[in-house]
Amino acid sequence: MSWYLGIDGGGTHTRAVVVSADGVAAGAGGAGPSNYHNTGMEAAARNLRAAADAAWADAGLKARPAEHAFLGCAGVKSRGDMLRVRAAAESAGLAPAGAVTVMNDLYNAHAGGLQGEAGVALIAGTGTNCLGIDHTGESFMCGGWGWLLDDEGGAFGLAINALRAAARAADKRAPDTRLLAAAMAFLGLSEPDDMLARFYAQPWTPAEIAAFAPVVTRLASEGDATAHRLLVAGARALAGLVAGASRALVFPRGPQVVLLGSCARGGAPYQPLVEAEIRKLCPSARIVEPKGGTLHGAAINALRAGGVNPPPALDFSKIKTNR
Amino acid sequence: MSWYLGIDGGGTHTRAVVVSADGVAAGAGGAGPSNYHNTGMEAAARNLRAAADAAWADAGLKARPAEHAFLGCAGVKSRGDMLRVRAAAESAGLAPAGAVTVMNDLYNAHAGGLQGEAGVALIAGTGTNCLGIDHTGESFMCGGWGWLLDDEGGAFGLAINALRAAARAADKRAPDTRLLAAAMAFLGLSEPDDMLARFYAQPWTPAEIAAFAPVVTRLASEGDATAHRLLVAGARALAGLVAGASRALVFPRGPQVVLLGSCARGGAPYQPLVEAEIRKLCPSARIVEPKGGTLHGAAINALRAGGVNPPPALDFSKIKTNR
Repeated sequence: MSWYLGIDGGGTHTRAVVVSADGVAAGAGGAGPSNYHNTGMEAAARNLRAAADAAWADAGLKARPAEHAFLGCAGVKSRGDMLRVRAAAESAGLAPAGAVTVMNDLYNAHAGGLQGEAGVALIAGTGTNCLGIDHTGESFMCGGWGWLLDDEGGAFGLAINALRAAARAADKRAPDTRLLAAAMAFLGLSEPDDMLARFYAQPWTPAEIAAFAPVVTRLASEGDATAHRLLVAGARALAGLVAGASRALVFPRGPQVVLLGSCARGGAPYQPLVEAEIRKLCPSARIVEPKGGTLHGAAINALRAGGVNPPPALDFSKIKTNR
Repeated sequence: MSWYLGIDGGGTHTRAVVVSADGVAAGAGGAGPSNYHNTGMEAAARNLRAAADAAWADAGLKARPAEHAFLGCAGVKSRGDMLRVRAAAESAGLAPAGAVTVMNDLYNAHAGGLQGEAGVALIAGTGTNCLGIDHTGESFMCGGWGWLLDDEGGAFGLAINALRAAARAADKRAPDTRLLAAAMAFLGLSEPDDMLARFYAQPWTPAEIAAFAPVVTRLASEGDATAHRLLVAGARALAGLVAGASRALVFPRGPQVVLLGSCARGGAPYQPLVEAEIRKLCPSARIVEPKGGTLHGAAINALRAGGVNPPPALDFSKIKTNR
C-alpha cells in the first residue's frame, strides 16, 4: 500500500494526515507551529516531524517516509522559503529526497475549500491572503504581504484602521465616532492621550490588535458611520484581492470563489459587504460554500503532488477532526 | 542673577540651555536621548541631568537648581507622562519642586519656529506632529500618535505607503510603478516574494523604513505617477493636521504656519505640495519661515514658565549651536 502525507503547517499549530492512493485518510495528528520565520527552522522541522509521527500512530502504522509528502506552510512565499522548508522536511525523513513538495498553506485552504477544483480562495482571519488556481493548474497568489505591508480587510486591518479613526476623532480631524470610547475601553484607558504610552511602551502582536475587530463590526451594526465606512473599505480591499487573482488567470466562465477565515466568514454585517464588493468588482464570480477543511486540502495536494491525478474522492470517516 | 533652564529632550539626544531673565543664553550642553518610553525613566533622567550639567559648565557656572526649568520632551503626551517626567526632573534637582514645567518637545519647536508668537507649527520628519497655540495661550496638539496609529505624510508614512504600493504592483492589484524596482534595490532583494521574509523575520525600526522616503520623492520628480500620488496624499494628511489645530483654536486673522522637520522642509517636490494643500484646506493660513531653532524655543519656554512674560529678545551669541 502507498501512503501519502499531507501537512498543514500554521503559525499556531501543525496538522498532518496520512492518506492512501484510493483516498482513505487513515490517521491524523497535530503538533506546534511551523512557520519557520517565527519559530526558526529547527523548531519548525521538529513540529512537522511530530505531527507526521502522530498521524502515522493514529493510522496504526509505524512512522516511515511517505510515497510523497505535501507541506502547505504559513510563511512560505518565496522560492527560497520553499527550498529551505523542503530541505528540512527531507532531512526529517517525511519522504525521500525529491518526493517532498512545499507550498504556502493557502494551497491547502484552496484545495479543501474548493475540493481540488479551479477557483479563487480568499482568506481573511487576522491577516488576509488570496489564491487563484485555474483549469490549467496555473496559480496566482494575490496579497499575503503581512500586517506591515498589506493589512486591509482582515481583522488586524479593520482593528488598526478603527484605532486610527479613534485617534483622529480624539483630535477632531475626523468626525465623532463611538469607536473612540470603545477603543478606550478596549485599551483600558481613561483618556486618549494615554494611547501613545499604551502602544509604544511595549510591543503589540497583530493578533492582540486584531481583537478589536469584533467591536468594529458591532458598532457598524449599531449604526456608527465611521465603523460602517471601515467595513466597506475593508470589504473593497478583500474584493480587490479576488479581482487581482482572477485577472491574473483564465476563468472562462468566471471563477468560483470561496471565503475562508473568521473575518470573511463571520456573518453579518461584514460578510455580506465582502460578498457584495466581490460581485461588484468581479461580476462573473460565483461565491460558493466551502466544501471541506484544510486537512482535506492537504490530503488532496499530497495525492496530486505524488502523481495520483485526478485524486479520488476522499474518505475522512476515520479521522476525528477534519478541519 | 536668576537663571532659567530650558531643555529639549528628543528621541536621539537631549539639549539644554541656561538663560538669564534678560534673555542672555549663557551656556548650552547636550547628552543622550530622553524619550522615557524608549529609554526607561532612569536613563532619561540621567540624560536630562547630564545635558543640564553640560549647559551650566558651558556657562562657566556651578550646576544648581534653576529658578525654573522647562522640559520639552519627546514621548510626553498624556497628563501621566508629564507628571512622571516632572517628578524625575525634580528628583534630579533641575529646579526646586514646583518650579519644573514639562510639555511635549513640540512646544520647543513651536516657540523656536514662531519665536513665541501664536500660530501653528507642523513637524514632519520621520513622524509627524502639529501644535497650535493661539493669542490667549490656548494650545491644541493635532496628530503625534506615532507610526502605528498616525503615520501619514512624514518620511515613515511616505515610505511604508510606497512599499505597500510596490507590493500591490507586484501582484498586479495596482498599476506598474518604478517604486517596485526601487523597493527591491532598497531592500537588497531580487524578487518581490522575498519581501515577506525581509520584513517579518527581524523587526524594523520606523527610521529604517523611513529611509525609503527620499526615493519616493525622487521618483515622483521623475514622473512616476504612483510616487506622485503618494506625495499628494501625504501632503493632504499634513494639511489635515494644520487644519485640525487651526479649527480647535481661535485665530481671528488666520494662523501663521511654520513647517519644520526634514520631510516638510525638504524642498521640491514635496514641500510645495504640502504648502499648496495647506492653502487649500486653510485659506487663511500664512506660511512663514522658521525664525529660530528648538533651543531658542526651550529658552523662551523656560522664561515664560518662570514668569518672565513676555520674554525679552534672546541673545544666543555665546552659544555655539542654536538649532
